[in-house]
Amino acid sequence: AENTACAPVFSPRHFEGENNDKFFTHPKNAKALAAYLFAHNHLFYLMELSTALLLLLLSLCEAPAVPMLRLGIFVHATLELFALIVVVFELSMKMRWLGFQTFIRHKRTMVKTCVLFVQFIEAIVVLVRQTSHVRITRALRCIFLVDCRYCGAVRRNLRQIFQSLPPFIDILLLLLFFMVIFAILGELYLWKVNVFFQYFNTLENSLVNLFVLLTTSNFPDVMMPSYARNPWSCVFFIVYLSIELYFIMNLLLAVVFDTFNDIEKRKFKSLLLHKRTAIQHAYRLLITKQRPSGISFKHFEGLLRFYKPRMCARERYLTFKALNQSNTPLVSLKDFYNFYEVVGLKWKAKRNREHWFDDLPRTAFLIFKGINILVKSRAFQYTMYTVVAVNGVWILVETFMLQGGNFFSRNVPWSYIVFLTIYGVELLLKTTGLGPVEYLSSGWNLFDFSVTLFAFLGLMALAFNMEPFYFIVVLRPLQLLRLFKLKKRYRNVLDTMFELFPRMASLGLTLLIFYYCFAIVGMEFFAGVVYPNCCNTSTVADAYRWVNHTVGNKTVVEEGYYYLNNFDNILNSFGKGSFVCSKDYSLEGVTSQTTHWSRLYFMIFYIVTMVVMTIIVAFILDAFVFRMNYTRKNQDSEEDNGIVLEKEISKEEVIGIIELYKRISAATETAQLQKIVLQMDKYGQMSAVFLGRRSRTKSDLSMKMYEEEIQVCGLELEISASLSGETNIT
Amino acid sequence: AENTACAPVFSPRHFEGENNDKFFTHPKNAKALAAYLFAHNHLFYLMELSTALLLLLLSLCEAPAVPMLRLGIFVHATLELFALIVVVFELSMKMRWLGFQTFIRHKRTMVKTCVLFVQFIEAIVVLVRQTSHVRITRALRCIFLVDCRYCGAVRRNLRQIFQSLPPFIDILLLLLFFMVIFAILGELYLWKVNVFFQYFNTLENSLVNLFVLLTTSNFPDVMMPSYARNPWSCVFFIVYLSIELYFIMNLLLAVVFDTFNDIEKRKFKSLLLHKRTAIQHAYRLLITKQRPSGISFKHFEGLLRFYKPRMCARERYLTFKALNQSNTPLVSLKDFYNFYEVVGLKWKAKRNREHWFDDLPRTAFLIFKGINILVKSRAFQYTMYTVVAVNGVWILVETFMLQGGNFFSRNVPWSYIVFLTIYGVELLLKTTGLGPVEYLSSGWNLFDFSVTLFAFLGLMALAFNMEPFYFIVVLRPLQLLRLFKLKKRYRNVLDTMFELFPRMASLGLTLLIFYYCFAIVGMEFFAGVVYPNCCNTSTVADAYRWVNHTVGNKTVVEEGYYYLNNFDNILNSFGKGSFVCSKDYSLEGVTSQTTHWSRLYFMIFYIVTMVVMTIIVAFILDAFVFRMNYTRKNQDSEEDNGIVLEKEISKEEVIGIIELYKRISAATETAQLQKIVLQMDKYGQMSAVFLGRRSRTKSDLSMKMYEEEIQVCGLELEISASLSGETNIT
Repeated sequence: AENTACAPVFSPRHFEGENNDKFFTHPKNAKALAAYLFAHNHLFYLMELSTALLLLLLSLCEAPAVPMLRLGIFVHATLELFALIVVVFELSMKMRWLGFQTFIRHKRTMVKTCVLFVQFIEAIVVLVRQTSHVRITRALRCIFLVDCRYCGAVRRNLRQIFQSLPPFIDILLLLLFFMVIFAILGELYLWKVNVFFQYFNTLENSLVNLFVLLTTSNFPDVMMPSYARNPWSCVFFIVYLSIELYFIMNLLLAVVFDTFNDIEKRKFKSLLLHKRTAIQHAYRLLITKQRPSGISFKHFEGLLRFYKPRMCARERYLTFKALNQSNTPLVSLKDFYNFYEVVGLKWKAKRNREHWFDDLPRTAFLIFKGINILVKSRAFQYTMYTVVAVNGVWILVETFMLQGGNFFSRNVPWSYIVFLTIYGVELLLKTTGLGPVEYLSSGWNLFDFSVTLFAFLGLMALAFNMEPFYFIVVLRPLQLLRLFKLKKRYRNVLDTMFELFPRMASLGLTLLIFYYCFAIVGMEFFAGVVYPNCCNTSTVADAYRWVNHTVGNKTVVEEGYYYLNNFDNILNSFGKGSFVCSKDYSLEGVTSQTTHWSRLYFMIFYIVTMVVMTIIVAFILDAFVFRMNYTRKNQDSEEDNGIVLEKEISKEEVIGIIELYKRISAATETAQLQKIVLQMDKYGQMSAVFLGRRSRTKSDLSMKMYEEEIQVCGLELEISASLSGETNIT
Repeated sequence: AENTACAPVFSPRHFEGENNDKFFTHPKNAKALAAYLFAHNHLFYLMELSTALLLLLLSLCEAPAVPMLRLGIFVHATLELFALIVVVFELSMKMRWLGFQTFIRHKRTMVKTCVLFVQFIEAIVVLVRQTSHVRITRALRCIFLVDCRYCGAVRRNLRQIFQSLPPFIDILLLLLFFMVIFAILGELYLWKVNVFFQYFNTLENSLVNLFVLLTTSNFPDVMMPSYARNPWSCVFFIVYLSIELYFIMNLLLAVVFDTFNDIEKRKFKSLLLHKRTAIQHAYRLLITKQRPSGISFKHFEGLLRFYKPRMCARERYLTFKALNQSNTPLVSLKDFYNFYEVVGLKWKAKRNREHWFDDLPRTAFLIFKGINILVKSRAFQYTMYTVVAVNGVWILVETFMLQGGNFFSRNVPWSYIVFLTIYGVELLLKTTGLGPVEYLSSGWNLFDFSVTLFAFLGLMALAFNMEPFYFIVVLRPLQLLRLFKLKKRYRNVLDTMFELFPRMASLGLTLLIFYYCFAIVGMEFFAGVVYPNCCNTSTVADAYRWVNHTVGNKTVVEEGYYYLNNFDNILNSFGKGSFVCSKDYSLEGVTSQTTHWSRLYFMIFYIVTMVVMTIIVAFILDAFVFRMNYTRKNQDSEEDNGIVLEKEISKEEVIGIIELYKRISAATETAQLQKIVLQMDKYGQMSAVFLGRRSRTKSDLSMKMYEEEIQVCGLELEISASLSGETNIT
């Protein structure tokens, strides 16, 4: 009865200081809690995600559509309306949970509501008129994806981008200022020799060409006409490039890197503060008047039951024991502060046996023991490295000898089978020698395993001649990556690379969302523009050429291929985006067929890409520098296998808890615990030892890196702990 | 007599812990000291520099020479021999000073000796044979320049490059590894669609094109043929670019940045250590048996006489007073540690009058006072900003209206005169209001002054129609840079930019030295290769086109201009270098005319440039991040005008020193000091106040930034101070 009364207090989210939620967004009454619980589970999240994706993917089917996926206006408009109604439902649930006041105050939700309203009207208009109008607002559909529960990382990225924006824009203005100055100089000085080339004949061309010069894609071309007349004109270009490209562009990076670094530190501090405040809240609710000095296991157990419902009774008690540093049966506030660090631990009984085969009969034991020793020996490892190296050289030689012949002949090359057999044997030996669990617990082994598996699948594909799976075969050279395990620096770098992967993926997704917006806008403006043989007067004419002529008795098509980059549907629009980044020539093609203002679109697009790219670079830089500093600080502790905690429980303790559970008549918990007692009886032990493990998170690393700073601000934290309004929603 | 005996001890260099010289290179006896003194003055340094430059510039005149500068073989070989003999002389002086043992041990000198020997033999061979042979060794001439006294910064850069090399190479191998894997994949998969395009038809082409892809210069081109056949092939390119360009290239930067940061800290620490050791050495020599607790002014004065011969008596005493924190007449070791910080101060009598015009008659005073108040007012400043902004817009509109017309018409535009007049008046007002000395003491005012002066010179050039000086006119837009003074971030950025300038110049020089080496090698290999209309079968054929054809009655020359990049003389060779960095296409031109191995030359060149460029980027990044951190740490202290120290001297003190100088019969010093006494008498003062100023150096900033770390290692320093062998020659 007591626990149920506490429910709103212990509600999973209410306690989740972990996610840095604002406290005022927590549900306030039973009705709100019901809505809250309805809107916070994976089913609901998946619905959110799928409606958002549906809305985004509709762009493929709406005119101008990808030919294969074209749908009737009636069909796609109905689909859109349906998706929008689902979003309305989601929002109404959110309003129920937050209350009208909070709902209005929450900016992101308000923006989403407005966009929803506009989209609704437009969808109805499309249905009524039975024809698509110019719908640039489709670019705003991204907000439905960004607001998804699963896209928290994207929101974090976006926030980081917006935070870095003010200093970024400052420096960007400096960049543009120099660009204008050089454009003026360029027009005044270089126009004479550029009459034929249109690089510097007007201020506009001057500016555009200097802008494109930032990408270096037009570099020698833009300079050569002037250079041919007067070699000294190269000074103009050298000065421009050194100031803009090497100085101010780096300055941009420095500013973003600095902001990034600063934000990371402040975020870590604020998250720490938020967690502590959450813990203080919880602590105040958990202590009773009878026992004001700490939390008893009874109350702690009630908390865990709501916070981590799937935790078993044993784990709950172990968590309590791990927290409790003193010998009293109560957990004090100071101990309780470690809650988030301890609650993530996975508990397992400490094995008495060293290897998985210890219980097997003597002969089998000796064989497996032998394999174990062999597999762990240096000789075996280095033999495998040699095999991999030989394999690498072999593939190289094979490819070199190929010289354009067809690799995928009917008969499988024997070298493939030989090396695959060796890898297979190695895999088998390791699995049996170490036991499958220990073998797969190492990331590198997992990598070996999957590469070998792919190689095997590739062999199957070759043997049974399944052409679509040939791509698996070419993954073989990845095996060579194993060689980099030999040196510590590479291990570090590759480990960091794998750690960075999720974050990189979310940054990539952020970039894709920007691309989507620009693709929609580009499609609305430039769809249907025809490029082949355009811009014959400019220097990129060849790139857009499309001529058939006959040589002997064959028709040769001379193609520049650039005309392929068009905006005729969203997929091509995406493609166009990536070209603009590298080759701003392409804007020549569009400009020649539309107005000069289309250049603005490309410039804005380039700048936005530049912002995101700079942030990606700053992020990678920051992560690596952090890692390297960390490695330097902890040179002695060679490999770290995460955080491990050891706890011993005596038989009396277990029996005591069983009594407790019996009193509140929790049958499953009692049964679980009785199993432990039985096990102890079986082996005749008076106590059992358990190991709690979890992998090290960035937060742990930061904690270690900023140790001193945290010590200093520890007191300050305690004082300002009640100012919870400062922290942000993630 | 005592002072002369101390001479070798106090020799300027011996005490120069400031430059981080190894102690074992100090002269050991009187003969060595004579050689040392001979080889350490600006005349000798200039000789060193000019011989080095002569040797480098000889490449302009040797075959294949720049047409205008061609010299006969006899002439340039004789010149070379002469320069080499001068170098021999320099080296012999160095040997005399260092002693044979130390000379042999000093690596850089030994390398120089070997190069000298080789060059000598080659020069004689050229003279005897009367014809130039393949002299790649000319690339080694750079070492003569690097070894110059004035090129210390270049040596520091080179050392930094070499120190960053091991981690850089590690990551480079990772880069190359992925490149090879992708080259294999590319050949296996993309060759079919590339039969006509030679991008991926052989492993070699595959590798080269992926390498060039790193520069993104061939980006859409290399992908388009495959993309046209199968749009999914773009996945290959996207994955390749994200791994190589965005990930590993950034990793390179991170590694260099990290090494850089670490080295900077360690260097600062070692320099501090070295200085302290030097001070301890000097202190032990300066204290006498009678007074073991500190240095008296008499001995201190003797030291300064050798360390800074041009310091006057007053400054010597002020330095002594500034060092002496206690009230005793002796300087203790602890105080003496500040020697380098104090000795750089420039001392001036503190003005009693606030403005330069305080002594003028009443009317003039009031006028100037009015101007002073006007000039310092916010209204005046903002008016000037407005004028500059209007001027900027004016120039922009003017240039825009021009649309390709000739800017340099006979009659000077009236707007030019109007704005120049306003700036002139502002300059005049500021100079009279603040006084010329105060006006020019600010860097920004100096900038205004020079820009206005240039604008005036430009006007002269226009008025008197002196065409070669027209370039001055176009410097006018620089005036707009003043607008950036308005915001603090820009002030910071621009200040840092100016501070970085010397270092950037030295990095540029380092890059030029690398370019020189490659230019020589390129010239020896590829001189005389003809490019026009080469590589007709490849995609860059257009760029090398050179055709005349007739349109109407005019002959139009259709030029690709790329053929201009050749190796026919060293200037062109330099040019080629900068193209390769941005457009690796050009290697197609050379390759088609020579062997495939020439690609190796370009690849190595690109990698070396990449190393230097990465270091430049890391350096800029480091400098800005340091600066921004520093600004954040010292937000309260708004502007800092360098380090200022105030010291008061009483009349009795001065008279006491005069007595001292009279005793050692130093007439000039006595006279100087007596002047001060006279001045005091004139104004009826009993004491005079002096201000010591110097600008803040990076060392001061570092001292403040690493304060805590220094506190910790202070004790350690004291202990290990005798280990002077660890530090390096700069």
